[in-house]
Formats: sequence, structure tokens, C-alpha cells
Amino acid sequence: MPRLKPIEWTGTDVVIVDQTVLPGALRYETVETPEQMFDAIRRLKVRGAPLIGVSAAFGVYLGMKQLGVSAGGAEAVFRARQTADYLATSRPTAVNLFWALDRVKRRVAGMESVSGQQVTQAVLDEACAILKEDRAMCRAIGEHGFEELRRFDVLHTHCNAGGLATSDMGTALAPVYVGLERGKTFHVIVDETRPLLQGSRITAFELMQAGVPITLICDNMAASVMKRRKVDAVIVGADRIAANGDAANKIGTYGLALIARAHGVPFYVAAPSSTIDPSLCDGSLIPIEERSEDEVTCGMGRRTAPEGVVVHNPAFDVTPAELIAGIITERGFFRAPYDFSRV
Amino acid sequence: MPRLKPIEWTGTDVVIVDQTVLPGALRYETVETPEQMFDAIRRLKVRGAPLIGVSAAFGVYLGMKQLGVSAGGAEAVFRARQTADYLATSRPTAVNLFWALDRVKRRVAGMESVSGQQVTQAVLDEACAILKEDRAMCRAIGEHGFEELRRFDVLHTHCNAGGLATSDMGTALAPVYVGLERGKTFHVIVDETRPLLQGSRITAFELMQAGVPITLICDNMAASVMKRRKVDAVIVGADRIAANGDAANKIGTYGLALIARAHGVPFYVAAPSSTIDPSLCDGSLIPIEERSEDEVTCGMGRRTAPEGVVVHNPAFDVTPAELIAGIITERGFFRAPYDFSRV
Repeated sequence: MPRLKPIEWTGTDVVIVDQTVLPGALRYETVETPEQMFDAIRRLKVRGAPLIGVSAAFGVYLGMKQLGVSAGGAEAVFRARQTADYLATSRPTAVNLFWALDRVKRRVAGMESVSGQQVTQAVLDEACAILKEDRAMCRAIGEHGFEELRRFDVLHTHCNAGGLATSDMGTALAPVYVGLERGKTFHVIVDETRPLLQGSRITAFELMQAGVPITLICDNMAASVMKRRKVDAVIVGADRIAANGDAANKIGTYGLALIARAHGVPFYVAAPSSTIDPSLCDGSLIPIEERSEDEVTCGMGRRTAPEGVVVHNPAFDVTPAELIAGIITERGFFRAPYDFSRV
Repeated sequence: MPRLKPIEWTGTDVVIVDQTVLPGALRYETVETPEQMFDAIRRLKVRGAPLIGVSAAFGVYLGMKQLGVSAGGAEAVFRARQTADYLATSRPTAVNLFWALDRVKRRVAGMESVSGQQVTQAVLDEACAILKEDRAMCRAIGEHGFEELRRFDVLHTHCNAGGLATSDMGTALAPVYVGLERGKTFHVIVDETRPLLQGSRITAFELMQAGVPITLICDNMAASVMKRRKVDAVIVGADRIAANGDAANKIGTYGLALIARAHGVPFYVAAPSSTIDPSLCDGSLIPIEERSEDEVTCGMGRRTAPEGVVVHNPAFDVTPAELIAGIITERGFFRAPYDFSRV
């Protein structure tokens, strides 16, 4: 079965998979306005750092479509910048969002003297280029990652950094898919990833669809599973990587890295180079999104905590570089001390 | 508000709180047969190692009530043993279950020559004694624990080792309740404790009822919270402690202990001496219950994983003694190397 495409440009429409209803339902949705794209990002209908970037770029294009046909270049460039700045406020942590929007803004910079339609076309071209590059990036990460991981049999992954977090085969799961193509089948331990269960809902779903054997566990079972020596390596994605290699990723990643270290299990991060933010010297500077209490108290259909309870719900944590065995990007494999200047 | 009594002997009936429906509903249930008590234990209507022991002892009494009034001592002793052996198969990990049932069996040993009613009365007396001792045990653990923990302000606890896991103020939470009586208010970080959410459903509920300030988090947020230096100590209960101090407790405890160690946060275990199993030299010999896949895939009202997914769902894990700063029992405070001979 071919992999699901979580976002697609049909030639006329931007179509996404609503990931909030997986795996119970597979619902495609045509996104028609920047506001709808903002909402889709905010509510995690589209999610995963690389996919957020691609989606936001198309979101700018949707803003351009609202321009009148007679709009001039200056108006169109202004609209592109305005829409990009608006979409940049949809989520705070994944740097790919800002990276993709900056690319769109750079693409239209200086186009004030051409027609509005030409600016709109340039935005669409840039969004399509980001989408296309994202697919090539996944493939390259898969190749580099498989080179490193082929000696292992059992991998543990957290959250979803798979095909549904990107526009193709994912980042952390790309080596697994490349392995499948080459006759190597990994067994993947998938943790459910509270509070929003991207592991059980999305990673389990896409790996099972691809025919990869998995075992689903709760997040808090990782140490027990590793103690029984059933795990060869951990591989996760990232939402932002500081210059020193500290990596922000889904909440729970840092604890998992500590547990892996205690059991001598190597811990890898796979992410496109657009995830690296050289402007931050270390991970303490990465802004961490705090999300709604409801995700913890009634995230799965019924209320599971007392009314009025105080909740802390950070969406991400930061894994320090010293716990990371290596960072796999489309440009190759990086080890500490990190020098991302070749990225 | 007085603490809930999760089990009570009214003088005529055994009444439990059905903990599976907390906090949404507070439902009392009269348990009438050993089969109903088996089911209540198996399905976690009553849960927590000390409470399981108390409940099972009353379960034997419920079996005795089914004897005809003319039953002789031999028949009654046989029935007591048979019912105890049956109830011992309800859950495998908490040693308090076997300890309480052994006490009942020892109490009736040699009573073949008295009347059946006298044997029945002896079983009831023993169950009531275990219940009464359990209350005294909680108080003593609270006193010893408070002595050790009073220098701290913020505690993290996992699962529920509170008043609803025992017949009174609990084990891990007893120092918090003793603190309240003495004017010391701890802030408690409560993790939800997947898959059955005893933390968010039960610990949050009972601490909020008592007026203790809490913050609810998902299990996988513990490392993030500790990194921000907001936690002074971790305290948890135990279901079985081996002779070397290795302690089995709710799944996730071992990972939490590793995370605490990495942040220099002391990790305490509080449990009655009946939890210590000197017959096991270390924790690798403790049997670990594997529970239903449904708890992971649709534990909270709707299915959250694909149909057919392979699940691993161990109910407990073992924390090695070297990660434990001390074990608090009703007899006092123990540190490694453990010598439980004074227990």
C-alpha cells in the first residue's frame, strides 16, 4: 500500500489528511484560506516539524488566491509577507515553520514591480519547491540513517516523525522505510506519546500499513522494555536543534534519552537541516509551547481527572547534546561536538 | 472533608468504593461473595497492594458466610483454605495479597474441632485485625516518612499509594497527610500513570479533596519538570520488595527512578513491612503481571490505536535498590544495604 500523503497540491487545491481523527477515520480536507491553515496547524490536523513548514508555505499561497485579479505586485508582496507573519504565530517551537515562511518571503522580495499574479505564482512555486525538497530530504535522511542503523534490529521511536510528519517517508522513520526497500525489516517499539497519542494513533498506523512489525507500549514502559535488552537504538525527530546539538522534540523525548543512556542504548535524532537553528547557542533558548489542559484531563473522549485540577502541559522538551549519539540530516550524519557549518 | 474509606466492614456487610469509575462517579458497592471480591480485585475496583490484602481477607469471610449454619469446623477450615487459595490467584504481583491470605489460613489452622461458626468468626476477626493494623501501619509510615521528608517542599508521586490504596491515609501519601495535620503543606506533582490513570483519576482526586496543592502532568513530562528543578523528592509505594531492596511498583516507576537519579532527586519507597518478600533475593524473581491490551488501545473511552496492533502491557516494573534513597515502613526507615531482619 502506498504511503499516505499528508499534504498534496492537486494543481488546483491544497488537500490535507486530518491527523486528529486517525486511526479511527481517514479524512481528507481541502484547505481554502490562511485562517483554515492556521487552524489546521494549531489544532494538529497537520503536524510534525517538516510538514508544518510545507503546510505554512501553501497557507501563504491560499492568502494570495484571495487577492483580486487586478492586484499589483506591491499589494501582492505585502499580502505574502502579512500572511506569512500571521501563519508564523500558529505554533512556537518548530523552527521549520519560520524557515519555510522566510523562504517564501525571500522569494517574493523585490517583486513589487511585476504583476500580482506573478507574485502569486512565485509563492506557489516556492511552496511546491519546499514540498519537493521535503520529499528528497526524507529520502536522503533515510539513506544516511539506514547506513548507521542497519546493524540494529529493534528500534524505539517516540511520537511521530514518520511519513505523516513530513510530505513523504518521514525523518526518524525514513531509515525503516529505506530498510524495507532493501530487504531489512526492523522491529519498532512505538510508545503512545501522551497526551495526544501520535505514537499509537499515527506511528503505529503508518508502520502497520507499511508492513513493519511493531509493539505498542505506554510511554512509561520504555525503561522496563530496555532493561530486558530488547532495544538496540532509539530514533526520534526534532522540532528545533540549537547550534550545540541540543534538540527540542515532543515532550517525553528527554526522559527517554536519559533512560536510553542508563541502558547503554544509543539515541539518534533525525531531522532536516532546516530544523537546525544556528541562532540559538543552546537548547535553553528554544521556546517551549504550553498547550491546553484539556489534552491531559480529557484528551481521549472522556474526562479522566477531577474538575479544577491544575495541569502542566508542555508540548516539547529539550534533550541535551551529550545524550545524543548522532544527528542524521539530509546532508549526512553529525556527531558531537557539532559543527553545522557544512549544513 | 474526611478521607474516603475504600473498604469498610459495617458490622454486617463488606462495602467498597468502585475505584474504576473515579473521579467521575463515587460509587459504593456491597461485595457479597468471594467471586465478586475476586472480580473486584482483578478489575481494580479495589487496588493498591495493602488494600488488596485487606480486601482478600474479607473475601475469605464472604466465602464462610455461604456455609450452612450446621457446618462443622473441619468443613469450615477447608472452606477457608479453599477460598483463600482461590483469591490468591486474582493478581500475581502484590505480595500483601498472599500475606493477608496466609494470615487467615494460619488463624484457622487446627480449628477443625470447633464449630463452623467459630471458624467463621475467627476469619472475620482476622480480616478486621488486618484492616485495623493497616490503619495503624499507614499512620506509622506517615510519621516516619514525614520525619524524612519534612525538609522538602515539592514531591513527585506516581500511581496511587494514597488513602485509596490502603484502608486509611496510604503509604507514599501518608507523610503528606501527616504534614497537613502539622501545618506543613507539600506541593505534589502527580503523574497520570498510564494506562489506567490512577494518578489523574485517584491521587489527584484524593489530594485535592484533602486540600493539598497538586500539579497534574503526563508520565513523560517528569524529566522536563525535574530539569527545571521543581522537584525535591520522589515518593512511591510498592507491590513487592525483594530481600536486597529491589522494589516492584506500578509500571513507570523504574523509569521515573532513573530520571530522578539523573537530576539528583532522592527517590523514596513507602510500604508496609508486609510488602517485603524475604524469600526473593532480588527483584528479577518478582512475577510481573501482564494485563489486557485494551487498557492501552482503548482505555479511556475510545479506541486510540489501530485494530490488530501488538501491545506490551506489563502492570509493574522493578526499581533496583541502588536507585532508592530509602524505604519507609511502619517499623522505620531503611537504607541500603538493606537488612530487613528487624522488620
